[in-house]
Amino acid sequence: MLSSGEVREGVDVLLFLDARRSYLVRVRRGERFHTHRGFILLGDLIGKPFGERITSNLGYEFILLQPTVYDYLMKSLRATQILYPKDIGLILVYSAVGPGSRVVEAGTGSGAMTTALAHAVRPSGKVYSYDVRPEFQRRASANLERAGLLDSVELKVGDVSLGIDEKDMDAVVLDLATPWAVVTNAREALKGSGILVSFSPTIEQVVKTVSALEEGDFIEIETIESFLRRIKVKEGETRPETLMVGHTGYITRARKAGPARARSSDKVGPAFS
Amino acid sequence: MLSSGEVREGVDVLLFLDARRSYLVRVRRGERFHTHRGFILLGDLIGKPFGERITSNLGYEFILLQPTVYDYLMKSLRATQILYPKDIGLILVYSAVGPGSRVVEAGTGSGAMTTALAHAVRPSGKVYSYDVRPEFQRRASANLERAGLLDSVELKVGDVSLGIDEKDMDAVVLDLATPWAVVTNAREALKGSGILVSFSPTIEQVVKTVSALEEGDFIEIETIESFLRRIKVKEGETRPETLMVGHTGYITRARKAGPARARSSDKVGPAFS
Amino acid sequence: MLSSGEVREGVDVLLFLDARRSYLVRVRRGERFHTHRGFILLGDLIGKPFGERITSNLGYEFILLQPTVYDYLMKSLRATQILYPKDIGLILVYSAVGPGSRVVEAGTGSGAMTTALAHAVRPSGKVYSYDVRPEFQRRASANLERAGLLDSVELKVGDVSLGIDEKDMDAVVLDLATPWAVVTNAREALKGSGILVSFSPTIEQVVKTVSALEEGDFIEIETIESFLRRIKVKEGETRPETLMVGHTGYITRARKAGPARARSSDKVGPAFS
Amino acid sequence: MLSSGEVREGVDVLLFLDARRSYLVRVRRGERFHTHRGFILLGDLIGKPFGERITSNLGYEFILLQPTVYDYLMKSLRATQILYPKDIGLILVYSAVGPGSRVVEAGTGSGAMTTALAHAVRPSGKVYSYDVRPEFQRRASANLERAGLLDSVELKVGDVSLGIDEKDMDAVVLDLATPWAVVTNAREALKGSGILVSFSPTIEQVVKTVSALEEGDFIEIETIESFLRRIKVKEGETRPETLMVGHTGYITRARKAGPARARSSDKVGPAFS
Repeated sequence: MLSSGEVREGVDVLLFLDARRSYLVRVRRGERFHTHRGFILLGDLIGKPFGERITSNLGYEFILLQPTVYDYLMKSLRATQILYPKDIGLILVYSAVGPGSRVVEAGTGSGAMTTALAHAVRPSGKVYSYDVRPEFQRRASANLERAGLLDSVELKVGDVSLGIDEKDMDAVVLDLATPWAVVTNAREALKGSGILVSFSPTIEQVVKTVSALEEGDFIEIETIESFLRRIKVKEGETRPETLMVGHTGYITRARKAGPARARSSDKVGPAFS
Repeated sequence: MLSSGEVREGVDVLLFLDARRSYLVRVRRGERFHTHRGFILLGDLIGKPFGERITSNLGYEFILLQPTVYDYLMKSLRATQILYPKDIGLILVYSAVGPGSRVVEAGTGSGAMTTALAHAVRPSGKVYSYDVRPEFQRRASANLERAGLLDSVELKVGDVSLGIDEKDMDAVVLDLATPWAVVTNAREALKGSGILVSFSPTIEQVVKTVSALEEGDFIEIETIESFLRRIKVKEGETRPETLMVGHTGYITRARKAGPARARSSDKVGPAFS
Repeated sequence: MLSSGEVREGVDVLLFLDARRSYLVRVRRGERFHTHRGFILLGDLIGKPFGERITSNLGYEFILLQPTVYDYLMKSLRATQILYPKDIGLILVYSAVGPGSRVVEAGTGSGAMTTALAHAVRPSGKVYSYDVRPEFQRRASANLERAGLLDSVELKVGDVSLGIDEKDMDAVVLDLATPWAVVTNAREALKGSGILVSFSPTIEQVVKTVSALEEGDFIEIETIESFLRRIKVKEGETRPETLMVGHTGYITRARKAGPARARSSDKVGPAFS
Repeated sequence: MLSSGEVREGVDVLLFLDARRSYLVRVRRGERFHTHRGFILLGDLIGKPFGERITSNLGYEFILLQPTVYDYLMKSLRATQILYPKDIGLILVYSAVGPGSRVVEAGTGSGAMTTALAHAVRPSGKVYSYDVRPEFQRRASANLERAGLLDSVELKVGDVSLGIDEKDMDAVVLDLATPWAVVTNAREALKGSGILVSFSPTIEQVVKTVSALEEGDFIEIETIESFLRRIKVKEGETRPETLMVGHTGYITRARKAGPARARSSDKVGPAFS
């Protein structure tokens, strides 16, 4: 659960050992958390301010961090490694999701995007997240519960290409194998002017989806891909890291418009004469 | 102002003509909006659902869209062209800002990042946005007012390298020329475990800032840059666009930890004997 | 014509004014070369060493450079702006073209790739360069003549999808709209183990070409794209340039093998029993 | 040794098993080449045309390829993994090296760049390749001998920051830790208008080198970095590969000019009055 201020019983803490190792732990009085650097008495953490340095029984130092939504979604991402923070950031910006937004997501997958969306729409909005695979939803449910975000999500086992129950959605976010097969249902689910965002690894998926969006009276259709490169920063040794993730997927964004009256031209004839 | 459902008097609408031209207009009964494709009687829009196609007096079709935070921040961005949506998305994800977050931003600049942050922290959070240039704050204020987000922002004329009034902030977001000079004050303003994100165009700014963060007891310090490429998608002609933005700036993220007790080693001596 | 040592009558010189302006000029006694910074008496250049600074009649300084193949191909590239030095470099490396190589190229286009290939195969090799458009070949011929490379090239007006006259080629380099339609003829023209390199702007061209190569008993098939970013280097202001070329084309490389005897498996049955 | 036509005793062949495995082997009558897919009698290869498919004693098929300079340099590159074919291609294009060129290289390193340069300057040109580490030169010598390129190279153990013996070079190619310390000596070694190309992994190396070049009367100074991304091409599954090499090094190119007479302005006063 997300917490604030100082450590209380039942909250999650992130125990930071070094740049590569940190542990997400729920604080329970009377429990020990064991690492290869010794154990920590979790009850001792209660009342401590976040940011403080604590010491294991073997004398190793850990830093007591307060987990953010980013930490939760990174833990989810590790399971699947498809969508990346750079993509989540772009999808949030392009979908314009914010507090109060009502969003359909499909599929739930690891729940990382669901976590980011639920975090963004709180407290009055809602994420309706579909997946055909119940086992993914169970894992996502556990992740969302842990992050304290389950109240903002309705997890639904179902195939959005067969139908979407919700109407008047602000946004539909797709991360599934055949997004083009969902365009008509997504249109029905969206409010006028609502936004669809689709994430796909292959270019053929993108071509089919864009074609379906064009035929489905969507406008402002654009497709992008993004790259992210880490920089090793150190006086005299500054350089980008050798290996980078060269591709995760393409992001297509579009907006629902009313049905076109005239297709052959943007001019439909004088309204006044 | 952000609106929902259908067009009402006093809301903003986005009149979409084609992929390159759309107009952000406030709806006032009795007013005309003039374009090179004829005029639109704004009063006639009241009561219409978003997404609908409307026609100018010359018979040209426009689509009646509901502006999102993305539309507002893109309008702000056009003024300065430094920070890009890709960067805003990454800063949102890395800073973990969400509903209820309390954030210090410096500088306000065009107000684009301010707009995105204010949108994200609503309704209970707050963005304290500093800039030394009153004229930037005036423009940002107008942009935020128009987007209906001014209530979530406190615009402050001031130099954060001289001091930050706020304490216990969830995040500090820096987009200024000398971020390294603000690290100590940002540390004071942040809660323990709070997050600092800095955006800088040059690598020398990054090297100095990372050095200041390391000396200032920040952890999880990482620097990235991102690229975004548009794809022209059309069956048989699909290809990335020729020109792209190759650089906007580097993003550095770090987290406040308590002061280190031992610098030379992560082991501080056995706690129990 | 490429020259060496010092300036002689009839050679080309590159008159460098500043980073954005340099002029490729043939030295003729008695002629003046006029610029907006005054004129230069070309006869005065004869006998001067390359690298020297000379002065126009208005007192502006020019640097007397010796044109390289790079300067000649950049002049050609300016006309079409499709293939870039980064692509030419990769094609040279992947095709393994060098002194003595015999290469078929199609199409000639601006002649930039032809220039680079001719430079590389000198003096004993040959480039057979096809184009269906005589006007392109005329321009390429003039460019190659000027660069002193015409002896290493045979320019041929013709459609390589209808046939290639040459046999036993070391490499075939394709930069045309339908490379897949040339795969069979390229195979006939190549020696065993010879290399085909194809450059295409769209992904659909690549998919069709790779498919034709796979069916045509080519091996080591790989497709890459490359990006090149300029860096503005200045102490304290070092940063990549804002705009970059995000796409020129994809490069596919493959190698001719003999016809497969067994398709379903790499094991064809024991040779000895 | 590079060979042509068909397989002869003493030449190298590349035995291609699949996309990930190929073996560079010298053909000796009476020898067997053993693989995990059985052995091949090398004498049986003599007289066979390149490209042909041959079969191991266990019935596995190999393709008999003729090694190119690219194969040789890739074998060298595997040892160090710093410079990449994309960089070698760019350095070849930027340096304008070709048949007859005289080039100084430092350091020799794995010999991959040396191989590419030697291949390009044959038969009349020469590469003078310096390295302070005799063990690198021994390995490079073996690699160059094998590729049949040793005649075009003079390997020299020495430190180019202390001096370069050669004069009037067409190009100097640097891949060493402190290129800025070599600028003056490189200038002495270059002919007027000659080209210097430097490859460096860190940005601080680049800043120092560019500064030294500016002070050393070089012109046309530019720095670039390049990226290369592999594309997995298959109908319906086409996508860039997930991982890519995000950084190898920056390439700086410059050209030697005569000493500036006037520094403060490009106008040096009227030459005629």
